[in-house]
Amino acid sequence: MKKVIVFTFFFTIVSTAFTQVRKEINIPNIPGYLTLKCDFHMHTIFSDGEVWPTIRVQEAWRDGLDVISITDHLNYKWSFLKEYVNSEDGNAPYKTAKLTADRLGITLINGCEINRGMPPGHFNVLFAKDINQLKDSNFFNALSVAKAQGAFIQWNHPGYGQDEHLEWFEVHERLYKQGLIQGVEVYNQKMFFPTAVQWANDKKLTITSSSDMHQLIDMTYDKDTHRPFTLVFAKENTVESIREAMFAGRTAACFENQLVGHSEYLTQLFNASVSVIDLPMIIENKAKYIEFKNSSAIDYELELYQKVKGVGLPNKIKLNANSLTLETIKPNNTVANQESFKAKYKVVNLKSISGEDIIVEFTFNKLGTVENHPYKKEKYPEVK
Amino acid sequence: MKKVIVFTFFFTIVSTAFTQVRKEINIPNIPGYLTLKCDFHMHTIFSDGEVWPTIRVQEAWRDGLDVISITDHLNYKWSFLKEYVNSEDGNAPYKTAKLTADRLGITLINGCEINRGMPPGHFNVLFAKDINQLKDSNFFNALSVAKAQGAFIQWNHPGYGQDEHLEWFEVHERLYKQGLIQGVEVYNQKMFFPTAVQWANDKKLTITSSSDMHQLIDMTYDKDTHRPFTLVFAKENTVESIREAMFAGRTAACFENQLVGHSEYLTQLFNASVSVIDLPMIIENKAKYIEFKNSSAIDYELELYQKVKGVGLPNKIKLNANSLTLETIKPNNTVANQESFKAKYKVVNLKSISGEDIIVEFTFNKLGTVENHPYKKEKYPEVK
Amino acid sequence: MKKVIVFTFFFTIVSTAFTQVRKEINIPNIPGYLTLKCDFHMHTIFSDGEVWPTIRVQEAWRDGLDVISITDHLNYKWSFLKEYVNSEDGNAPYKTAKLTADRLGITLINGCEINRGMPPGHFNVLFAKDINQLKDSNFFNALSVAKAQGAFIQWNHPGYGQDEHLEWFEVHERLYKQGLIQGVEVYNQKMFFPTAVQWANDKKLTITSSSDMHQLIDMTYDKDTHRPFTLVFAKENTVESIREAMFAGRTAACFENQLVGHSEYLTQLFNASVSVIDLPMIIENKAKYIEFKNSSAIDYELELYQKVKGVGLPNKIKLNANSLTLETIKPNNTVANQESFKAKYKVVNLKSISGEDIIVEFTFNKLGTVENHPYKKEKYPEVK
Amino acid sequence: MKKVIVFTFFFTIVSTAFTQVRKEINIPNIPGYLTLKCDFHMHTIFSDGEVWPTIRVQEAWRDGLDVISITDHLNYKWSFLKEYVNSEDGNAPYKTAKLTADRLGITLINGCEINRGMPPGHFNVLFAKDINQLKDSNFFNALSVAKAQGAFIQWNHPGYGQDEHLEWFEVHERLYKQGLIQGVEVYNQKMFFPTAVQWANDKKLTITSSSDMHQLIDMTYDKDTHRPFTLVFAKENTVESIREAMFAGRTAACFENQLVGHSEYLTQLFNASVSVIDLPMIIENKAKYIEFKNSSAIDYELELYQKVKGVGLPNKIKLNANSLTLETIKPNNTVANQESFKAKYKVVNLKSISGEDIIVEFTFNKLGTVENHPYKKEKYPEVK
Repeated sequence: MKKVIVFTFFFTIVSTAFTQVRKEINIPNIPGYLTLKCDFHMHTIFSDGEVWPTIRVQEAWRDGLDVISITDHLNYKWSFLKEYVNSEDGNAPYKTAKLTADRLGITLINGCEINRGMPPGHFNVLFAKDINQLKDSNFFNALSVAKAQGAFIQWNHPGYGQDEHLEWFEVHERLYKQGLIQGVEVYNQKMFFPTAVQWANDKKLTITSSSDMHQLIDMTYDKDTHRPFTLVFAKENTVESIREAMFAGRTAACFENQLVGHSEYLTQLFNASVSVIDLPMIIENKAKYIEFKNSSAIDYELELYQKVKGVGLPNKIKLNANSLTLETIKPNNTVANQESFKAKYKVVNLKSISGEDIIVEFTFNKLGTVENHPYKKEKYPEVK
Repeated sequence: MKKVIVFTFFFTIVSTAFTQVRKEINIPNIPGYLTLKCDFHMHTIFSDGEVWPTIRVQEAWRDGLDVISITDHLNYKWSFLKEYVNSEDGNAPYKTAKLTADRLGITLINGCEINRGMPPGHFNVLFAKDINQLKDSNFFNALSVAKAQGAFIQWNHPGYGQDEHLEWFEVHERLYKQGLIQGVEVYNQKMFFPTAVQWANDKKLTITSSSDMHQLIDMTYDKDTHRPFTLVFAKENTVESIREAMFAGRTAACFENQLVGHSEYLTQLFNASVSVIDLPMIIENKAKYIEFKNSSAIDYELELYQKVKGVGLPNKIKLNANSLTLETIKPNNTVANQESFKAKYKVVNLKSISGEDIIVEFTFNKLGTVENHPYKKEKYPEVK
Repeated sequence: MKKVIVFTFFFTIVSTAFTQVRKEINIPNIPGYLTLKCDFHMHTIFSDGEVWPTIRVQEAWRDGLDVISITDHLNYKWSFLKEYVNSEDGNAPYKTAKLTADRLGITLINGCEINRGMPPGHFNVLFAKDINQLKDSNFFNALSVAKAQGAFIQWNHPGYGQDEHLEWFEVHERLYKQGLIQGVEVYNQKMFFPTAVQWANDKKLTITSSSDMHQLIDMTYDKDTHRPFTLVFAKENTVESIREAMFAGRTAACFENQLVGHSEYLTQLFNASVSVIDLPMIIENKAKYIEFKNSSAIDYELELYQKVKGVGLPNKIKLNANSLTLETIKPNNTVANQESFKAKYKVVNLKSISGEDIIVEFTFNKLGTVENHPYKKEKYPEVK
Repeated sequence: MKKVIVFTFFFTIVSTAFTQVRKEINIPNIPGYLTLKCDFHMHTIFSDGEVWPTIRVQEAWRDGLDVISITDHLNYKWSFLKEYVNSEDGNAPYKTAKLTADRLGITLINGCEINRGMPPGHFNVLFAKDINQLKDSNFFNALSVAKAQGAFIQWNHPGYGQDEHLEWFEVHERLYKQGLIQGVEVYNQKMFFPTAVQWANDKKLTITSSSDMHQLIDMTYDKDTHRPFTLVFAKENTVESIREAMFAGRTAACFENQLVGHSEYLTQLFNASVSVIDLPMIIENKAKYIEFKNSSAIDYELELYQKVKGVGLPNKIKLNANSLTLETIKPNNTVANQESFKAKYKVVNLKSISGEDIIVEFTFNKLGTVENHPYKKEKYPEVK
């Protein structure tokens, strides 16, 4: 007699081949805008990457992203791949990835990367209508066509081909004056370019942070580390709305648990992420408990901004992502008898483009009246 | 010259000693009721446990629970501890834990465990007013006093002192008829008692699931495993409201990712936990994607309840806790052209007290019109 | 003045692009043989997969494997990929992956998959010398050429195209008699075929377990789950030695923490994985501690095989991978005074091809002389 | 008919109550010495902690430690606990924990903490013979008795009661001159005292790092963080041998993935932890792979100490604990043709007491001869 197999093949393969789990990244929306998680720079076998474009969409879905652009080099192909892969059509990465993106709800932006020796270096063209029209050997001509198509143009990894002192070359100045640079990548792979943040501040450029992935995301970033990505504060999750936000500079660069952006948006993001739980908080001479609820995927690191007279406050507070953190503060009798008091903290892992500190303020209310610390008092509450 | 230490001592110790993180367990509320996570059975050094009562509160806060009762043995003390610990006052565990519970927002229920040889075995007395009054050598007298105090009485770990065939003894029948048993523990530590579930069904007893912890929670249950706990569906998170729900039988036993309870509440819990994401779902001849969003901390395991004509459906679906899971179904042309179709699944890890299967139904709508699989079609979407 | 960037670009990109971490899978060698972890079935863009061959090598390195074979379909190519990828050369997957494999120390086996309608279904050809010579429309001819090249031939996912009752068709019998089947895949992706294990036992076929991966390993198997793989017990980690072991049947199928293989090798594997720590074990009337050290990556699940008179033994023991597990046994006075006693356990997650249970035996020695349980005794050890 | 329960109660409770898993911390031995992981400072309900002493032993076993000392305050008891707990016997913590320690293989050191206002502050007395004899109101007398018992005396958390500029008071100088201070705690809970490291260097004091735990270890340190502990380099794992090592200064303080100690031992520890895998390393014009195997539980962070002419080397290398890490270096043609070349790295997370950098040197051999990068060459290896 034959044994019965556990599952029939037909049904099982259906559930097997495509069962995948998305890791949600909880980053809250801010007033008036959706907060979209975007990676605008990556490669496939259509230039010098090692995957087919659909993989980039699947990785993005799994990683909890909302928006990607596949930006294969328009004028640089790996000789090894060239033997096997026909990469003449510059729109091929977009076209071959589009339906998978639609099925998975990932917004896909048509784009490419145009290389030149340094200077000017490598440039991303995003929101292009037809990549093939950008194949002009004259760099200014190519970008002018892109501009005419409504594209957003950014200087990628500006430290490439430079020494430690990043230079804004004369060619960049010319491009900038002709409206051919709107953005700059301040973070690429695992490199940060502080000088580029300064340029963004001085010249009103939009900043981004990208994986620039060629191989596999999950081999480069382990399970506890998100790839670098760009937050876009957009009115809607549509190509046009994302484009509008990028031209308006409403982005933040997110990498290694750091966020760089305009202080206004970062402050709103913190406030939308963290709340103080309104527990019955018992003030005694000795200690008062505070619960901070961080609903976001960002670990916030706080440092006491200024001492408060009469209150022992933690110098440093770590608010882990998606966690409730219990801290203890120590008001003296005078403060404990006030209706409320305030404390200001600097959020260390939020960096404003302008260089100013991001300061947040908490108000602690006198909510409890039990006068003595439980471990010190002689009488216990009556057993009811 | 002296070096400067990194932090001053005073402030640092404040942030150190009490910084703790709560692991939230997301179990949704159901219509009309809060879903409270409760552990009603545990011990301290006031009988035969190895911690001070405040530790039980801190563990519960960390583990994401809402309600606990410390139920030290009233008439059994570890001889070793007796030498060092004065445990005469039966209310001491409650009294010494109460303020920590208030500070942390844990609802604390006064209780104890009364031991007798088997039968009748060990009984929990919950919601007692004064434990000291229960010190009567006559078991029926002791429980009658408890009843007069309004207490809820349950038979703990009913398999204790029995062989594999659990017996409901004559003494239990007498207790039951005198209104001295309202509940039964169907899960204790790592033991499940299916016979007790049958009793609960036949005799309308309230079921619970408990840790019965003597040592440390985190040494017995690792980081990926919750301790066993009882869900109570209560109108409010107050002692009186929890008591009302316990007497009304509105509980579920939760252990090892299994839930046992009344089918009505378990079905509501599933529906409050899982939603089908309304993505643009593209129906082709070959496949249709479905995204299930499970917002709860429970991993749901589904099995196809009945085949649907003309649709290849996964036989098994695993919906991981707090995750978005992508599945693929395969309607034929006829089904793909219907406005919608339905599929029924059995939720394997939900068990009703009455023994009937818990069945849930999904409706899949024809939302997309793209006719060909992206990997099969000859034309690509126009590049805009 | 310009800001100084944190790292220079040139050096940083060196450390960035290729920094990868290998997850070692500790599976011990057995007497006389290396235990090699192998995946013999996977796809790339040269047939219907979505990655370039080098990615398969990198995934294998990261996943702690020793040996892989890329087995693209010889006579089936995704029409979508065909437009862009030239896949005429059947040896292309091997050739394009070989140097990356050499660099990473992965042993690469040249192979392919030959498809026919069911029966006979899909067949793997491993250790082929030239894949291009196998392009014969006659299936028997193709496999005969493979045999002449010294190849190992296996029937893949035998449940494919069958209903629940797996059939060994007449064509398989003919292939078998002509020496054109040496192995059978008993596990593929997430499907297990118990009937195929029975065939392996009856017909002396070599069993394997494979990922059959088309997309990305890490999207199908999460961080806590290894892909299915085959253990090969080989004299050396060389292509020829692996081939010899495959023809000799020295393999085990490893999937979902189960191992299926010849009982002799599985028993050796358990004994090489688990040891009982020789702690000062104190026998009292009440309890005796035992520490089990499991040095392997396999979670072993044990069940008491037969009760031992006078000793309370755990019915079930879970020995987590790479862990030291503490268990308690309860000998009575008679047993506690014996020099030693033995206990037999069944290893539930090891399955022999022949169907017999895998039984292991532990010896517990009387090593300690402290007569009373610490929590019961009246006198304490003298404070020195 | 009655249902059969899954397990009988008796056997199940045996396997339940004590099943525990130890997290091994792999820190290698160094030439001539065992590397023992020790925590010499913690509290129980015998002074102001919240657990019974056995819990401290169980925590230590679980956390992978080898040695602990319970150091309850001799002259400070929590008033709240005093009501319920008889803590007159200063040896009670040791006595009540001893047999559990013996059973679990944890070496237990008798000790206590003696408090005075600052200065001199709090002092640990380790390896005492009878704690009760130290109850002398004169501090110098108490420590002199300890010294006569052969005890090791250390100043705990020297920042306590001081401002940011740590002072070595006159009383400490007197104690030191009378041989009543052998050690100093440079790390306590989450506080580091760099000034104390300087004292240790200047005065030849032994350094330690401690949890000073009062509540539960696992609530203060999450699953990814070890508690602070002291490494002792001892000839054997015995009380006497540990004592000898402490007096000889053979310790290192281990906290937050940092180690502070004598450079000689730290360098040996690194060399015993990390090896370079002797893969067939292929040197091309472009890149050479290096695999670093870190067998220890310490994440090592390396920084290039000096540039090597003609080789692009990673500026920073992170060698994760228990991992194989792949890095790429870029020798030019000249270097690639040398038989070998060397590179020096600074180990950032190892700090010597004397302040000098810990430098390690790697030798990379010319092992491979393949001249071209696989992705660049025109010819592939012959398919055999």
